[in-house]
Formats: sequence, C-alpha cells, structure tokens
Amino acid sequence: MKYRIEKDTMGDVNVPADKYWGAQTERSRNNFKIGPEASMPKPIIYAFAYLKKAAAYTNAELGVLPAEKRDLIAQACDEILAGKLDDQFPLVIWQTGSGTQSNMNVNEVISNRALVLSGGQLGEKSPVHPNDDVNKSQSSNDTFPTALHIAAYKAVVEHTIPAAEKLQKALADKAGQFKDIVKIGRTHLQDATPLTLGQEFSGYAIQVQYAIDAIKSTLPHLSELALGGTAVGTGLNTPKGYDTKVAEHISSFTGLPFVTAPNKFEALASHDAVVSTHGALNQMAVALFKIAQDIRLLGSGPRSGIGELLLPENEPGSSIMPGKVNPTQNEAMTMVCTQVMGNNTTITFAGANGNYELNVFKPVIAANFLQSAQLLADACISFTDHCVSGIEPNRQRIKELVDNSLMLVTALNTHIGYEKSAKIAKAAHKNGTTLKEEAVKSGFLTAEEFDQWVKPEDMTGSLK
Amino acid sequence: MKYRIEKDTMGDVNVPADKYWGAQTERSRNNFKIGPEASMPKPIIYAFAYLKKAAAYTNAELGVLPAEKRDLIAQACDEILAGKLDDQFPLVIWQTGSGTQSNMNVNEVISNRALVLSGGQLGEKSPVHPNDDVNKSQSSNDTFPTALHIAAYKAVVEHTIPAAEKLQKALADKAGQFKDIVKIGRTHLQDATPLTLGQEFSGYAIQVQYAIDAIKSTLPHLSELALGGTAVGTGLNTPKGYDTKVAEHISSFTGLPFVTAPNKFEALASHDAVVSTHGALNQMAVALFKIAQDIRLLGSGPRSGIGELLLPENEPGSSIMPGKVNPTQNEAMTMVCTQVMGNNTTITFAGANGNYELNVFKPVIAANFLQSAQLLADACISFTDHCVSGIEPNRQRIKELVDNSLMLVTALNTHIGYEKSAKIAKAAHKNGTTLKEEAVKSGFLTAEEFDQWVKPEDMTGSLK
Amino acid sequence: MKYRIEKDTMGDVNVPADKYWGAQTERSRNNFKIGPEASMPKPIIYAFAYLKKAAAYTNAELGVLPAEKRDLIAQACDEILAGKLDDQFPLVIWQTGSGTQSNMNVNEVISNRALVLSGGQLGEKSPVHPNDDVNKSQSSNDTFPTALHIAAYKAVVEHTIPAAEKLQKALADKAGQFKDIVKIGRTHLQDATPLTLGQEFSGYAIQVQYAIDAIKSTLPHLSELALGGTAVGTGLNTPKGYDTKVAEHISSFTGLPFVTAPNKFEALASHDAVVSTHGALNQMAVALFKIAQDIRLLGSGPRSGIGELLLPENEPGSSIMPGKVNPTQNEAMTMVCTQVMGNNTTITFAGANGNYELNVFKPVIAANFLQSAQLLADACISFTDHCVSGIEPNRQRIKELVDNSLMLVTALNTHIGYEKSAKIAKAAHKNGTTLKEEAVKSGFLTAEEFDQWVKPEDMTGSLK
Amino acid sequence: MKYRIEKDTMGDVNVPADKYWGAQTERSRNNFKIGPEASMPKPIIYAFAYLKKAAAYTNAELGVLPAEKRDLIAQACDEILAGKLDDQFPLVIWQTGSGTQSNMNVNEVISNRALVLSGGQLGEKSPVHPNDDVNKSQSSNDTFPTALHIAAYKAVVEHTIPAAEKLQKALADKAGQFKDIVKIGRTHLQDATPLTLGQEFSGYAIQVQYAIDAIKSTLPHLSELALGGTAVGTGLNTPKGYDTKVAEHISSFTGLPFVTAPNKFEALASHDAVVSTHGALNQMAVALFKIAQDIRLLGSGPRSGIGELLLPENEPGSSIMPGKVNPTQNEAMTMVCTQVMGNNTTITFAGANGNYELNVFKPVIAANFLQSAQLLADACISFTDHCVSGIEPNRQRIKELVDNSLMLVTALNTHIGYEKSAKIAKAAHKNGTTLKEEAVKSGFLTAEEFDQWVKPEDMTGSLK
Repeated sequence: MKYRIEKDTMGDVNVPADKYWGAQTERSRNNFKIGPEASMPKPIIYAFAYLKKAAAYTNAELGVLPAEKRDLIAQACDEILAGKLDDQFPLVIWQTGSGTQSNMNVNEVISNRALVLSGGQLGEKSPVHPNDDVNKSQSSNDTFPTALHIAAYKAVVEHTIPAAEKLQKALADKAGQFKDIVKIGRTHLQDATPLTLGQEFSGYAIQVQYAIDAIKSTLPHLSELALGGTAVGTGLNTPKGYDTKVAEHISSFTGLPFVTAPNKFEALASHDAVVSTHGALNQMAVALFKIAQDIRLLGSGPRSGIGELLLPENEPGSSIMPGKVNPTQNEAMTMVCTQVMGNNTTITFAGANGNYELNVFKPVIAANFLQSAQLLADACISFTDHCVSGIEPNRQRIKELVDNSLMLVTALNTHIGYEKSAKIAKAAHKNGTTLKEEAVKSGFLTAEEFDQWVKPEDMTGSLK
Repeated sequence: MKYRIEKDTMGDVNVPADKYWGAQTERSRNNFKIGPEASMPKPIIYAFAYLKKAAAYTNAELGVLPAEKRDLIAQACDEILAGKLDDQFPLVIWQTGSGTQSNMNVNEVISNRALVLSGGQLGEKSPVHPNDDVNKSQSSNDTFPTALHIAAYKAVVEHTIPAAEKLQKALADKAGQFKDIVKIGRTHLQDATPLTLGQEFSGYAIQVQYAIDAIKSTLPHLSELALGGTAVGTGLNTPKGYDTKVAEHISSFTGLPFVTAPNKFEALASHDAVVSTHGALNQMAVALFKIAQDIRLLGSGPRSGIGELLLPENEPGSSIMPGKVNPTQNEAMTMVCTQVMGNNTTITFAGANGNYELNVFKPVIAANFLQSAQLLADACISFTDHCVSGIEPNRQRIKELVDNSLMLVTALNTHIGYEKSAKIAKAAHKNGTTLKEEAVKSGFLTAEEFDQWVKPEDMTGSLK
Repeated sequence: MKYRIEKDTMGDVNVPADKYWGAQTERSRNNFKIGPEASMPKPIIYAFAYLKKAAAYTNAELGVLPAEKRDLIAQACDEILAGKLDDQFPLVIWQTGSGTQSNMNVNEVISNRALVLSGGQLGEKSPVHPNDDVNKSQSSNDTFPTALHIAAYKAVVEHTIPAAEKLQKALADKAGQFKDIVKIGRTHLQDATPLTLGQEFSGYAIQVQYAIDAIKSTLPHLSELALGGTAVGTGLNTPKGYDTKVAEHISSFTGLPFVTAPNKFEALASHDAVVSTHGALNQMAVALFKIAQDIRLLGSGPRSGIGELLLPENEPGSSIMPGKVNPTQNEAMTMVCTQVMGNNTTITFAGANGNYELNVFKPVIAANFLQSAQLLADACISFTDHCVSGIEPNRQRIKELVDNSLMLVTALNTHIGYEKSAKIAKAAHKNGTTLKEEAVKSGFLTAEEFDQWVKPEDMTGSLK
Repeated sequence: MKYRIEKDTMGDVNVPADKYWGAQTERSRNNFKIGPEASMPKPIIYAFAYLKKAAAYTNAELGVLPAEKRDLIAQACDEILAGKLDDQFPLVIWQTGSGTQSNMNVNEVISNRALVLSGGQLGEKSPVHPNDDVNKSQSSNDTFPTALHIAAYKAVVEHTIPAAEKLQKALADKAGQFKDIVKIGRTHLQDATPLTLGQEFSGYAIQVQYAIDAIKSTLPHLSELALGGTAVGTGLNTPKGYDTKVAEHISSFTGLPFVTAPNKFEALASHDAVVSTHGALNQMAVALFKIAQDIRLLGSGPRSGIGELLLPENEPGSSIMPGKVNPTQNEAMTMVCTQVMGNNTTITFAGANGNYELNVFKPVIAANFLQSAQLLADACISFTDHCVSGIEPNRQRIKELVDNSLMLVTALNTHIGYEKSAKIAKAAHKNGTTLKEEAVKSGFLTAEEFDQWVKPEDMTGSLK
C-alpha cells in the first residue's frame, strides 16, 4: 500500500496515496477503531455536502470567497451527492462527540477533490484549503448539527412519513372493506361486546394518522439550522447576514423549508429538536407495535388460535414443522419498534448530557435517529405490501365466534338491568348453553324479546 | 371494626360499616395488596367526579335518567371535588388494568353517598344504583381513559406549563441582566471562544420555551375524550348524541376545551395521546437536565471549580464539612428529570402493549404521567425561586478566565489563517505565556494588530 | 401553630414546637416542595436508625463517644425502628442529591429525642449534638449510601426473594400437577408441535428461579457498606478500625451479612451495586411479564379465545358487561413489570451521572429501587395467591385443540421427510380435513403407520 | 444477472445463479427490505457453523446421519468459519422473529456448498438436503437461541472482558503511580476534603472490576444451550442423548464451557440469560460513563477549567479554533455507553414479549447484544491506549487547588467542633482570606495548632 504525507497543525500523517481524505481523517481512523468501519451514516455525509456547497455560495456572495473556489467546492459537493465519493468517508460514529472529524473528513475530501479538479496534487491545500476555504464561516459545532437536521428532516419527510401514509391508507382501505363484518370484541383478552372488523381497523388507521401528525408538529423546530453560529453560537468569523442566507441556499438545494435557528446557542448546546422528533417516532413505534401485535393475534391459528384473519403466506415458516406459516412481517415490525424504543432511550440520555456551549453526543444521536427513521419507513412499506394489503377475513370463523359469545348479554342491560343480565350470562357460562336458552329459562324476558334486543349487528352502530 | 354486607354479581362481601364504598371496592382491596394503600392518584378520582356528573346531566337531558337521580349524583360528585370524600378511595394503582375497580369505587361511593343524601341506608342501591344509574351510558373502558385525559390535561395546563413559563421567564430575565458580561465559552468542556453570559442564558430560556411549545402541540390529541365509546368503542348502550354532549358538559365543568374523540376504538385500545404528551414532558426533562447541570457546573467551587456563578446559599451543605454550600436545587431538578425519563420508558412499554379493543395498562400510565407532570411543575417552581432568581455573576472570576484564554486566537483566523493561529496558541499553551506575547514573537502580526483584532467583546456579537 | 427557634450554621429557623426535627430539616421542608410530603422512603429512615446506633456503639468502643451518649442515641434509634417516630421525617425524595438533609433529619430527631429522654429541652443540642455526636465519624456521603444498601438488601432478601420463591414453588407445583396433560404448542402464536402443560409451566418456574439466582449473585456487592469513608472516601475524622467495626455492628443489629466496602471511593461516587441488583430485578420483571402474559393468553375466552386454562374468578370484570371475568392479577403484574423496567432506566441514568467523589442522585436511586423491590414482592404474592394457585386446566378444550392440530405432521419428518410432510399438512389446511385423511390420500403412508407414528403424547417426551 | 430455480415447499424461486443460498433465503431477501442488506451479525452466522457441524457429528454418532454427509457438512461449516463464504449471508436482522430465515440461509448454503464439494449442482438438495440433513435434529427455534448464546458468550469472553481487564489494569496502574499526589476532593461538584489522585483512580479501577465480575456471574446461564429442544422444547425428532452430546461438541469446537440447558422450554421461550448478561453490560456502561466523564472534567481547560489532569493530545480539536485539543476518547466512550443503555431498553422490552413456546424477538436481541459487547470492547481498548495510559497529572495545578481549599477546615471538627469550624470557613470564604488567617483571628486555635491539625496529606490516609 502506497502512502502520501499529509499535514495538519499537529504534524505529518501517512495517508493512503489514492484517498482524498487527509491528515485529520487518518488520525481519526487510527484513534477510533470502535465498531465496524465507515459507520457514520451516509445521509450525514450527503447533508454535509449540501451545507458545504451552500456555505461556499454564501461566502462568495458576501465577498469572502472567490468565485473559482466556490465553483470547485460546489463541484466536489455535487460529486459527493451523486454518490461518486462514497468510499472516501471511512470514519465511525464513535469519534469526537462534536463530529469534528467527520466535518474535517468532508473538508479534506472536498479540498483534495477540488485540487484534482483544478489540476493539482492531493495534499497541496491550494487553491482550496480544507479549513480556510471549505470550512470558511463554519465550525464543526454548527455544521454537524446542521447536517443532522438536514439528514433527519429529509429522512422523515422523504421516507418515514410517506411510508407511514402508505400504511395508513392500506389500513383505512381495509377498514372500509371490512365495515360490515360483525365480530366479537375483546377486552382484557376476554370476550366482550361486538364491533365490526372495519371499526377495529379504523382504530389502527387513525393511530398511524395521529403518529404522522405528531411527527409533523415537530418539524418546525427540526427545520431550524445552527449554521452561522460557528464555534459557540456567537457567529464569530462569519460575515454579516451569513446565517440567514446560508439557510436559504440549503433550503433551495434540498427543496425543504429550512430556516436559520433564531437562537444559535440552543442549536449547538442542545439537540432538543431531535429529541422532540424522535419522541414522535417513539409514538409511532408504540402505535405500530400495537397494530402488528393485534393483527398477528387475530391471525393466529390456523386451528388453535383466534383465526379471524387470514394473513398472506409469504414463506415456509419452520425448518422443522412442515406446512407452518408464520406472521413474519408482524415480527419484523415489532422488532423494529423495540429498536426505536431503545433508540429513544439513547437519544434521551445523550440529549440531556450536553455541557455549556456544546452537546458532544452528536454522532450517536444522529446514528440512532436515522436508524429509527429508516427502519420505520422500510418496515411500514414491507408490512403494507407483504401483510396488510393481503389480509382477508375468515368470515366463517368470525361469525361462529360472535354468535357464540356470552357478552351479547350486555344488550339486555338497558332492558332488564345489569344484575339480571349477569345472572343469565353466568348460567350460560356454567352450563355451556346459549344466552337465549338461559334468558328464556330465567323468566326475565321472552324468546321474542331476546331476538329483538340481542342483535350483534345492532350493537356495533351506536356511534355511526 | 364493624361491617355491613354489600352484594355484587358474585355474592356478598363484608365492607367496613362506615365507608361509602361497596362490594367491588372491597374485593379489590383484598385482592390487590400491592404497594402502599390508596395509591391511585387523587386527580384521577376528581376527574371521575367531573365525568360522572357530566354523564348524569347528559343522561338526564337525553331522557334516560330522572332529574332527581341526576341531582343526587351531581351532589355527590361535587362533594368529591370539594375533597370531602378523599378517604373513600382506598384502591391501588396495581389493580385491573382497565381501572374498572376504581371506576366501580367511584360508582359505589356516589351511589351510597346519594342514598345517604336522600335519607337511605348504605348498600341499598336505590334510588341510585352504582351500575344502572351512576355508570349509565358508560363502561370502565371509556371512563378510565376519559378520566386519564381530564387529569393529564389539567395537570399539564394548570401545573406543568405555568411552572415552566415561570422558569422560562426567570431565565430570560437573567439573559437580559447578563447581556453585557463577556465570558469564556466552553465546548467539549474545554476553553473556546467567548460569548456573553446573557447569550448562554438565552439558550436555556429558549430550550424551556421549545419544550413548552412541544407540550402544547400535543394537547389537541389529549383533549379528545373516549367517553361514549362504552365497552369496546361502539357506544353500545348510549343514547344518540351522548358522546358529543357529555364532552361538552365536561368541558363546561372543567373550563378546558375537551371534545369527543373522533374514533373511540383508538381512544380505548391505545393511549398514544398520553404517550405523545409524555414524550414532550420527556423533552422538557432533557432540557431541564442540561440547564440545571450547566448552572451547577458554572457555580462550582468556591475555589477549585469554575466559579463563574454565585448560586443562592439555601442550607448548610454538609453534615461533616463545615461551611460547605451545595447546588441542591439543581440536584433535586436533575433527579426529577431522571424520574421523568424512566417514566417515559414505562409509558412507552405500557402504551405499546394494548391488545384488541383495550389497553390494560391504564392505571400505571396514569400514575406515571401524573407524577411526571407534577414533579416537573414543582421542580420548576422550586428551581426558579430557590436558585435561578438568585443567581449572581462572579464578575471578577469571569473576567480573569476570559482574559486568560487561548481560544481568543480564533479571531486571528480571518487575518492570518488557521494554521498560523494554531502555532501561536500552541506556543502560548506550551510556554505558559499569553497569546499576545506569542503572537508578537511569531512575527505574524504586530502588537497593535493583536489589540485591534482580538477583543473578546467583539467576538460575541456577530449575530446581534 | 406554635414554633420554637432552632439554629444551624446559617442562622435561626422557626420549627413547629412539637416536632423533634431541627433547623436543617425545616429548611429542606421549605426549600423543596416537590411532590407529596414525606416521600423519602421509610425503609431508608429505618436503615439510618440501624447505622446511627451502630456508629454510636463503635464510637464508644473506640473511645470517642461517652457511654451515656451512646445509650441515649441507641434508645432514640430503637424508637425509630419501632415506628414510634414515623411522623418526624417529613422530607421528600427531591432534595439534595446526597441525601444530606435526610441524614440531618435523622441526626436532629435523634438529638432532640435524646435530649427529651435525658430530661432536656428540644433544640438545646446537649448532651447529644446532632453533628458532633449523632453524626460522629460520619458524613451524609457515607451514611446515605450505607442506608441505601441496608434498605435495599433488606427489601430484597426479606421481601422480593421470599415472594418470588413462593411464586416459583406455586408454578413448579402446577408443573407437577399438569405433567400428563398433552396440549398443542404454539410458536409465533401459531400452532406447533405438542408439549405437556406441565412442561410449559416448568419453563415459567425455572424463569423465576433464574431471576432469583441472578438477584442473589449481586448481593455480595450490595452487602458492602460505605460507612467509614466519611466525606470523600478517605475516612477523615474516623478513629482507626472504625469502618470494619461499624459494619459488624450493623450486621449484628440487622442479622444480615454486611461488610465494610473494600474501596470507599467507589462506594460514595458510584452506585453500581444498586445498578447491578436492580438489573436483576429488571430481569425478574422481564420473566414475570412473559409468564403473566402467557397465562392470560392461555386463559382467554371464555368462548372466543384460547381457553386452555381456567383462571380464578376474583371479582366482576366489567361495569357494563354482565358476567365478565378478567385476568386482573395478570394485569396488575404486567403493570408492575413495566414500572420496574422504567425504574431501571431511571437508575441507569442516575447511576451513570455521578461526578468526582460523589454521586448526587442517591435519593432517586433509593426510591426507585425500593419501589421495584416492594412492588415485585407484593405482586408475586398477590399473583400466586389470587391467580397461580387456583389455575385449573380446561382438559376438554386442551384435548380438542391438540387432536385437531396440523402440526402433529412434524412426527412424520423422520419417516417420510420434510417436503412430503409439508404437502400433507398443506392439503389438510386447504381442505379443512384431518391430517390422517390427507396422509392416507397422499399415499406416502398407511393409516396404520399414521396411527403408530403420530401420537401427541409420544411427541412430548424425547427429553425426559 | 443469471438465475437458477430453487424450490421449497411453497414453490419455485429464482435465485442468483452463482450464490449458494436457496429458495427460502431468496424469499426473505425479497420480503424484508428493511434497513441495510446483510445486517444479521456475522458472529451469529459463525455460531451457526459451529452448531451445524456439532449437530452433524452428533447425528452421525447417534446413527441418524451417514459419515459422508457429516463430513461434507463439516467441511462447509469450516469454510464458513474461515470466512470464505461471508458473501452468502445476505439477510437482515428484521426478518422472522425466530431467525428461521437465517437458519435456512445457513442450511441452504451448507447444502449447496456440500453439493459442489461432492461434485454436484447447486439446488439438487442431494446428497445433502438443507432440512433433512443439515437441519437434522434441529429447529430454528433451538438453533437460533443456541447461536445467540454461542455468539454472545464468545463476544463477552473473547472481547468485552479482556478489553475491560486491560482498562482496569491501566486504571489500577495509574492509581499506583498517583498514590502520593494529594488533591482537593469534590462532592456536589463543590470543593470538599482532600484525597490522593491515586485514591480517585482506585475507585475507577474497582468500578470496572465490579462490572467484570458482574458479567462473569451471568455466564453460567449464558453457557446453557437450547439445542436439542427443537420446535417447542420437547426435543421432538432428536435421537436419545442428542442434547447433551451436541453441547459437548460445541464446547469442544469453540473451546468454551457450553452445556445443554436443563430446561429447553425456558431456553426457547425466553431470553432471560441474554437479558441478564446485558444487564451486566449496562452496569459496565454506567461505570464507564462515570469514569470517562470524570476524567474529562478533571482534564478540562487548559486555562478555564479544572486542569488537574493532562490528557493525551491525539488530534486537532476544532476546525475553527486553532490549537484546541479535546477529550475525544472520553466522548467516544460516553457515546458508546448511551448506546448500550438504549440497547438495554430494547433487549428488556424484546425479552419480555415472548409468547407461549417461543420468543420471536431473537434477531433484534442478538443484534443489540452483540453491538453492545463489541462497542464496549473496542471502546475500552481505544480509551486505554489513547487516553488512560497517557494521562499525566498537572502537579502544580493540583497543589494550588488543594492548598487554597476551604474544606481543609473539616480537620478541625474533632478539635473545636463543627459549628466553630463552620464559622472559620465562612469567614475565609466571605473575606477571600485563607483558613489559617481566619482560624487564628477567631481565637479558637493558635497558628501552631492549625499547622499541626490541618495537613492535607494527613487527611487522606485514615483508611490506609
């Protein structure tokens, strides 16, 4: 392996000769061998490319960067965004807590790539210097949280929300399809009064909708960018008007409504915006866990479970039990939900532990947030396509169970009172008989009254 | 001890003769000896009183309850709300997960109190029957979540938010008072470029503001009431129009903007609204932890710490070290924050584990939510009154530290570049000298240029 | 209300005239109005009484405390332990994070009670001074963690473990009673190969056993006491040999195997011993959640669920559905488990955030630990007495389900291979027929072979 | 891209022609596009290779598998263990919760590789069939938990514990080196009585030791293997003696003390052993968080912080502030700790949610456990090598701070009492004077007495 020498303020470093990264990236590679290589999420790198380009444009407009440097920087950024330099970002999550080393990784790659684009040699730091040009008017302390907000916002609006909307629609469609199927309700896992299968699914659909709404209500805070705060939030070494303008460029480049944060001190020292949005992702995990759990319970069987739903059979379920089919999509979904819940703990702890002018848990917050957003997105799509869309009711089983239920007795409350009704239900339970038999036997009502008063389909409609 | 016999559908139960509760409450007392007695939060009981009264009014208006019964029920509810019957609710949190037994506790107490008010005997169940009258058009399954939303909403808007606003104002006031005090910034706990103490406090103030805003954005979901859904969400055994009207009565009695939930299935089977609002309380805990932690670090000393702030001395700090004073309010606050974070885990797990038509973790969700809301409220007031309001800057110490700092060198970046600036700072660090000495020695700039370029007060204002 | 004046190093304080507490307790009452009064757990107060008495004995033995003072202190401690002074400890959890104020509360009460016992007046501080005598050779910093270990250890060995052992025995007894009942197994909630109900319960019993063992394995660390470390762990102001001897006295007074901590710095600055034992309580919560969840699923019905178990009917289950019975003990248990899991988050975060020579999250750690230990204990007893002990199998239902199962086909794997077996199972599933019908129709085996190879009872015994 | 057709019990599937995996792996690839590809941890795959080989040997010994098949299977397993087939395992964590698809992935790859080794064609399923031969005497339900225990045990004993021991030794070495350096203690972040820097580090060293011990105490449970339980724990389709023998083979192949689980029902349906060991990893995270946090606080500065320690300077700390150096290793470590704490939440929730005979959160439990074990291992090594080993005391700064401290007054308690001592300390604090000045001025003691009684070095040694 060939090396070249790169320098930084601490001295010389051997860097693989064919790589665009420089001294500081290489130091980080050697100092942080923690977990798999290159674990810093790519969306963070891409977000850096947006902001470096925006900074170059803003610096040029405000007269502190020549147009040629701007264009070289922009060209390198575009290449990063096109995925052409993916192998130039070897750093891990578990580095300095400000993400300085990933900021420098981006600075070094852009600088060196710009050098090559302009006909120079790697490591010359001219005409585009990693600190003085690429990082101009910036600090790791404002760039990393800016990249975090860009990447998080994009992940949520481009992946999580659309995927959740797809699932929401599929659930709502099923609610419509199933609206006339009367089934037994269950509370405490025990038989209760009837409802329609459509009503049950309407609850799932609206849970997802509330979670989407909750995420959306956190987006304004997440749209605020730290960039322009530089080292501690005061904006030292930035030209006047820089923060507003750079946010406009980022907004323009990404097509998303980013604005400059009204208070840069908060934007560097805390990550409450991310805590907030991830809190809503946690709510979504709570909702999806319940939904996926319910659907697999309702589809359990085929002969010794509940069996009201027929779930799509996607793969053989067992390596030992022939013919077994399992609710595997539900299992993937519920596992994803537990991951998101754990990530919420991580983000909560990490978010609370900032000190003074800087929170130095930025990379772990970034990694956990982006994992949650992507896993929820992917799981919603997979669950929709491979489970929800293909769900069919087992009408015969549903009818058997509702017809047989003792809790239809509740319809008698308003006619004969709770206590007499209870006597009828208990007698039927004890004797293994039907409600009607015991109702008539009790003398509290006639068979005709029973038939008139106890109609499962009438018991589902009071709120219609 | 004297007993009377009360009956329910399972048979006879001995109940203390002088208590208003009945058979089902007594069964619960005997069956659930878990943790301290009467741990079901009182705000839940009071919320039940609001909703029972509202149900009685609505039932009367819709023609299913005579006015005399309505008035007896309402009178008993008013007594509960006045705190006159506090010792009639002996049940614990750790009971049935639907809170049925606390619903019945309320039903039984209202029934028996109504009997006494109308000149009858305890246990007669007439003229006001606990199930057929007090619980008319209701189920535990819709009353408990309704009580939960009422109690949670009240706690948040009457306690948590006002207390947080008080703290926010105190922090903002300090930000104003401290706006001209230039101090050293710190990132990674290490010396960084300067900012004003006012800027630092402005970050704290806005963190609290964002948390308040986050809570508020969750309130619409929390304002939705399950009442009218009865057993499984279908509204069985309710008169037409009941759900809307009963929410109006509750809104009127409490003075809070409650509405009926658009989907009762979600409102019984999930508690995502509570998960959502508690997620915002968790964000507030994250913010308050950071603020309280920072303030105690800044106030650490008196001689071997940071010492930039003088915190109020409220009590002797040590039983062994004479004269010691500690940041005790900050410690109380950070402990409260860890409690809220743990409660968030509990509520997340409990919220996710609903099944079918009912979530049966209602009491534990209620208890954890109400504890968080109250602790945050109380801690915000205590922290404001006994700490924040009395904070004074140690101007001499602040000035010493900023004047001495090596990171003022950052102001040179835009004049002589990052690398030369680094050389100066490193030399001063190594030699224990001042930046100016090393700057002049370096030959990169003159003493006059140094004085002109490096002014801490100029380094704090770029964003003003 | 009458007051007397008490003094401390900060000046005069009005204290209710009839209370034993003094100036510092009163300051804390006024400065920390957070949550309900007197929330500091009583077991912590009692543990303080043990250690104050032990300190007095040790100090006397080592010649630094006169015997008369020792006896007065010991007498006051015995009164605390007898519960006679319960109303003298009004402080809350949310105070200084070292618990100094509760230590002083105990010092003040003992001092004042000793004064009264010796014929003096409240507040005179002589002959028994709260700091110089009661607190001699101590600091809050070593007393509170000592009290925490005493209270935690006692709670675990006197409550949690015996209660869990009771549950373990009940589950093991059921495993024995049910050892010949062959039932359908379920994996992924779907029908699987058979096992006996006894085997299923044997898994529950051993889960509880493992959790008990896990708790026990953490006890040696928890048995180590910080006392003797005083302010920062160096043992300043203690006579030689004090730490070992005072631990012996505590061990003798409590009857539990406490020893002095080999490293007092760790014992003050971290609470990893408590984190460790609570980690084992968390494991127990995980186990109990699974067990309680399973049992309510197996008992679900009565007509539209699984219905293999008949759970005790303890109370009417519904305020609207007559005759309904719910698995309420299971619900209480699973709620307790979610509380313990949340407490684990609190203790984890609080335990991690010590600084330098002291962790100042001691009271919140104490409160959460003791709540978990007590709730698990109470819930185990309640669950055993009101649920597990009364569980009966529904033999008819169990037999129906197993006889009808398609997964009995697995027994054919070793005879005709996985793929042919799968064909038979799928055909039976599709046609709603029995395995035997399809097996014979397939031609892969004869009816006689089927009967010989497919015997549910033979499928449960390979490991016997 | 070329494809071949592979079959399973559901029909034909196109599989990339050059891959060893088969139909079920391909189905899973298509059905679970959740998160990055091939995310199932490789240590799980390797653990499967150990167990498949062990199963083949055991089956052969017990007469149910021909020696030729055994040898082909073993050869393919050895190739997997040598890392030669790493690209044959494309599946993700987020699949079926039993890990069936990864079990089948291994079965298919071994089968196809065996076919090729024996001169056959991919997909022929003969002479080595994925289910009937490779999976013989096994089920996913017992293989995945077995692989989980093997991988988890290996990770802990080969990585986590040795790395933690290395850190423990480095901390203990520093404790020895620093044993005579007297420094100010700090409690509540405030100045307290002195101790030696060595004593401080001794606390860190023993924290790590306790965490190692805690992990070790959980290993016996983790050493128990589910293999032999097959589908539901009964051992159906295994030859007599299989479970014990197969554990012996695994123990022999891995060199680790694995044994067969005494109760296979627990081993499939719960993962309490993993919950238990991860609880100890959580304790380690708690300890490491405290240690890394302390060291960066003690090293804070260089001029406006505590500055008692000089931490190694590993890389430039800031992209904007020249010459800045940050405690980056500590930041990586504390981020890792928050990740482990979040993973503990995930594992807790996933571990609690098993149902009946199977926990179907196996892959998420595996992934989180292995991440924690590896991150802690790597972070301990990195932190030791790049931080702890290079820590130097700043003796001058340490001496200044201790000499100047007011809390040395504590040494006077035993001579003049707490209250007079407090007066002296308060006067010095108020007047900005030294303790000695105020002590003499107070008249409570002479200058000579002061010098004799107040010696910092004497205040650190009482416990020696």
